[in-house]
Amino acid sequence: MGRQKDALRKLDGTFRTRHRLLRQGLAECLGTLILVTFSCGGVAQWILSAGSHGTFLSVNFAVGGGVALGVLVSGPISGGHLNPAVTFALCLLGREPWRKLPWFFFFQTLGAFLAAGIIYCLYLDAIREFGHGELLVVGKNATAGIFATYPSKHLSVLNGFMDQVIGTAALVIGVLAIIDPHNNSVLPGREAFPVGLVVTVIGLTMGFNAGYAINPARDLGPRLFTAVAGWGLEVFTVNAYWSVVPITAPFVGAIVAVMVYQLMVGWHHSKDEPERNREGREGEQLKLASVSANEEDA
Amino acid sequence: MGRQKDALRKLDGTFRTRHRLLRQGLAECLGTLILVTFSCGGVAQWILSAGSHGTFLSVNFAVGGGVALGVLVSGPISGGHLNPAVTFALCLLGREPWRKLPWFFFFQTLGAFLAAGIIYCLYLDAIREFGHGELLVVGKNATAGIFATYPSKHLSVLNGFMDQVIGTAALVIGVLAIIDPHNNSVLPGREAFPVGLVVTVIGLTMGFNAGYAINPARDLGPRLFTAVAGWGLEVFTVNAYWSVVPITAPFVGAIVAVMVYQLMVGWHHSKDEPERNREGREGEQLKLASVSANEEDA
Amino acid sequence: MGRQKDALRKLDGTFRTRHRLLRQGLAECLGTLILVTFSCGGVAQWILSAGSHGTFLSVNFAVGGGVALGVLVSGPISGGHLNPAVTFALCLLGREPWRKLPWFFFFQTLGAFLAAGIIYCLYLDAIREFGHGELLVVGKNATAGIFATYPSKHLSVLNGFMDQVIGTAALVIGVLAIIDPHNNSVLPGREAFPVGLVVTVIGLTMGFNAGYAINPARDLGPRLFTAVAGWGLEVFTVNAYWSVVPITAPFVGAIVAVMVYQLMVGWHHSKDEPERNREGREGEQLKLASVSANEEDA
Amino acid sequence: MGRQKDALRKLDGTFRTRHRLLRQGLAECLGTLILVTFSCGGVAQWILSAGSHGTFLSVNFAVGGGVALGVLVSGPISGGHLNPAVTFALCLLGREPWRKLPWFFFFQTLGAFLAAGIIYCLYLDAIREFGHGELLVVGKNATAGIFATYPSKHLSVLNGFMDQVIGTAALVIGVLAIIDPHNNSVLPGREAFPVGLVVTVIGLTMGFNAGYAINPARDLGPRLFTAVAGWGLEVFTVNAYWSVVPITAPFVGAIVAVMVYQLMVGWHHSKDEPERNREGREGEQLKLASVSANEEDA
Repeated sequence: MGRQKDALRKLDGTFRTRHRLLRQGLAECLGTLILVTFSCGGVAQWILSAGSHGTFLSVNFAVGGGVALGVLVSGPISGGHLNPAVTFALCLLGREPWRKLPWFFFFQTLGAFLAAGIIYCLYLDAIREFGHGELLVVGKNATAGIFATYPSKHLSVLNGFMDQVIGTAALVIGVLAIIDPHNNSVLPGREAFPVGLVVTVIGLTMGFNAGYAINPARDLGPRLFTAVAGWGLEVFTVNAYWSVVPITAPFVGAIVAVMVYQLMVGWHHSKDEPERNREGREGEQLKLASVSANEEDA
Repeated sequence: MGRQKDALRKLDGTFRTRHRLLRQGLAECLGTLILVTFSCGGVAQWILSAGSHGTFLSVNFAVGGGVALGVLVSGPISGGHLNPAVTFALCLLGREPWRKLPWFFFFQTLGAFLAAGIIYCLYLDAIREFGHGELLVVGKNATAGIFATYPSKHLSVLNGFMDQVIGTAALVIGVLAIIDPHNNSVLPGREAFPVGLVVTVIGLTMGFNAGYAINPARDLGPRLFTAVAGWGLEVFTVNAYWSVVPITAPFVGAIVAVMVYQLMVGWHHSKDEPERNREGREGEQLKLASVSANEEDA
Repeated sequence: MGRQKDALRKLDGTFRTRHRLLRQGLAECLGTLILVTFSCGGVAQWILSAGSHGTFLSVNFAVGGGVALGVLVSGPISGGHLNPAVTFALCLLGREPWRKLPWFFFFQTLGAFLAAGIIYCLYLDAIREFGHGELLVVGKNATAGIFATYPSKHLSVLNGFMDQVIGTAALVIGVLAIIDPHNNSVLPGREAFPVGLVVTVIGLTMGFNAGYAINPARDLGPRLFTAVAGWGLEVFTVNAYWSVVPITAPFVGAIVAVMVYQLMVGWHHSKDEPERNREGREGEQLKLASVSANEEDA
Repeated sequence: MGRQKDALRKLDGTFRTRHRLLRQGLAECLGTLILVTFSCGGVAQWILSAGSHGTFLSVNFAVGGGVALGVLVSGPISGGHLNPAVTFALCLLGREPWRKLPWFFFFQTLGAFLAAGIIYCLYLDAIREFGHGELLVVGKNATAGIFATYPSKHLSVLNGFMDQVIGTAALVIGVLAIIDPHNNSVLPGREAFPVGLVVTVIGLTMGFNAGYAINPARDLGPRLFTAVAGWGLEVFTVNAYWSVVPITAPFVGAIVAVMVYQLMVGWHHSKDEPERNREGREGEQLKLASVSANEEDA
């Protein structure tokens, strides 16, 4: 055991990075990887089993659970955004510095790309069998929908854009309420499961139009993977360039959410109401809007 | 960043309202908006997808999750009633002043009305396709049931009234147990998720007769929206004026609940048993029956 | 408001009972009423809607949620047993006095009887329609199964007895772990939701044979109600007097559970390991095995 | 009561073992017994009822709930691994001594074997009826799949191995995040429910290929039981010796998980960040990697 512990300590010293932003980027990458592995995995199991081992309800639970576990893993290091629209909302509110937005967006998309690869490896045989050896983007044997979102037939582009705006606004309002320091329904550091619930509920109610991406990285990463892995560039161009919607509309949704939440709740907390202060001092607590960010900007 | 923070502080100063009741009304409005967005959204996804993307079970989870998130958002400011029958029960018990009842009722109904509008926008194309371009109240292509409740065929008006009384009584008994200061199963400020569970369970067990409105605002707001948005006044008159039941019976249910709870549990907590006092002083804690209300009445 | 508060205080003085056992009995009655209302309601919605508004899964959630809410309501006063087999197990372990067993059994059965009446009133029209006006115990239009349990066709009496022993043993082992003072997975006073989970999981896994009564009061009360309300004495005699099994086998299951838990876990907690003591002193905490009981026996 | 208490105290003295490893082994045995009883029970109810009393979703909830309850029962004594791959990962990280690996493996497998026996007794009649009196390993009346895992038709051995590696890696990464002392999303002693969620989510997303054993003991114990109980040695040899995969691949998955977690998150917690220290001193807390283990190695 003594030798093992020495080796572990040595590895620790070698790989520990002192670069705070790299550390946060890696955490966002792993967190989003977990979220997207379970999101794509849930859809894969539903589609590939033709409903015998999954339903849309089980997809909703898988995605919500994936969000919760992704936030749980990355929260203490990066804040657990896992979604460029969430990072954007926190930047808008001055809780995160703007330079984090492209940096996190990159690592979130990287994590989502890798996650698509994991699910591809996991269901390699099943995907082949389902598409009779082909990797199709449209039709009843299509498997591209396992990875990225595609709109239902009834959906116009305008309605689709509105769908992503409303869905993301619902997500961001939920997140803002959960991390509000005036709100003690959720303690700092315990945001993971409530945020997962928000996403589950959005899936139960706003998933029929276009599969509730509501996250540019979650949609773009796996779409890039399918483009590379054999489905081809059709994944970007199909349905009148639908692929543009889930990477633009969520930012509009984040703006709407910040305005609505601040106007109706956020700005009205009276200054003299006690903030949540039950367990130790504020400074010792890990918050979704991570403490370290504020230090950097000071 | 400096300039952004100045701007944010300025906005904060401009929009912050010092009117306590207005602040509470806005919170009830947003909370009920969230609750009804997810409630109507869940039913919409179930009906419009013809069961492929939703079941009654997923509706039950969506409604319960919506209640939890609505209470979570509004709880610290207004107490998170989101239901005139709950406000009424707390008034009966002397925990809220009576003048809050019409005020909250108005803002709750407003939030529910707006929520119906959000779901209408979200599923605009799907609603059109489902009704073949028409907005119908009855028949197999009816879409009015997405927004307000309508009774099943087997249901008489008398049984329907009883249904709403029993359902609301179950809800209010659950709420009274959860916010009981002698009951430490649920800490003050953490009522959101248990209350959501109560509503989920009611949906699983008392939803077959008439869709468990058990909330006058939740039913009236969206019904008003459908009357205005094109379904017409039939939404009020159909099924022998069913629309009257979900806005009257819940108040009877609240009275029953208060009597049953107080007779069987509430009045029997011995005075000398310790109240829940684990985490800090009572006065620092946010309670569903909000502290501020008592101050006003003092 | 002043007059209302005076009236409330007066009512409080009139109805408050100083008889501790009566208070506990009323709490057990209301708790079991809640549990059985949701249990029977879940089955009713599943059967009467012919699966459109319920599945066996939704029944499992309804029963588990009902247990959680019943324990939540009654826990601080009576300990929230809601099941004579649980009371029996705690008596076996010396945590409750034996005279509580018949007393709690009576009030639990009374609550279950009343709950059956509530669900009968709630679904009066639907029950009539489902049975074409008749109240049947067997056959495809039978509605007696909404209230009490009946075995599946494949089940022999011996296997049925074993089914109830194993199911109740699983329940009691779960309860003993949850209330174990050496186990800090669940804090004192927060047992309601974990106990609900135990019952949900039992329903997901041990419900196919005979509907997992695993609770003599939960089965006997509603069976009595159906005998009185029009289904007749057949509810007791059908299936070779099956009705005897769910009111005897659970006690055997409780004995098995106590032996297994104590042999494999309970007796091995080392005396010097710290008990769960994080939040305040033991004496201030409400426990499932209520503090008051010990006082009485001292 | 006095005599009963004396008897209980005597039994306590007789059966209490002072052998720490035996105590931990018994706890692992009971915990795994609970986990596997609910896992096999969930599959049994799904298969034997032909879907009327279970779906793959309900199996996922049953398995996750079983994990949570198993960890809850055994956690304070043994750490609640319930899975040799988890024990192996903790040994790799130097948190548990290596000699615990074979010891825990044995008791975990024993618990799983006994659990299979319990479910066999519970569903004796139903198993007989489903197989028309025969105990079959393959075909549409096969019942061996209730107990151990068998691959879907589409699955190659290579893909099956990858499936078990990825699934176990997901589990172990989740467990490492949950028990990470730098992560305060989950308090020490409350790991049971989050770990259950991880397993539920894996079932929702990675269960279609081969039923997500991801646990050598959970698969081997019940397989041994079926070999002995009448299904014969075919349970080991069928599907090109598939039985070898779920007892080897999970260990590879554990290695992958430890490397990924440490590289991307674990080694980057800055030394000066506060560990979770809200509730009392570290030494008083029960952790999944049990305190006692460290004492032994010191």
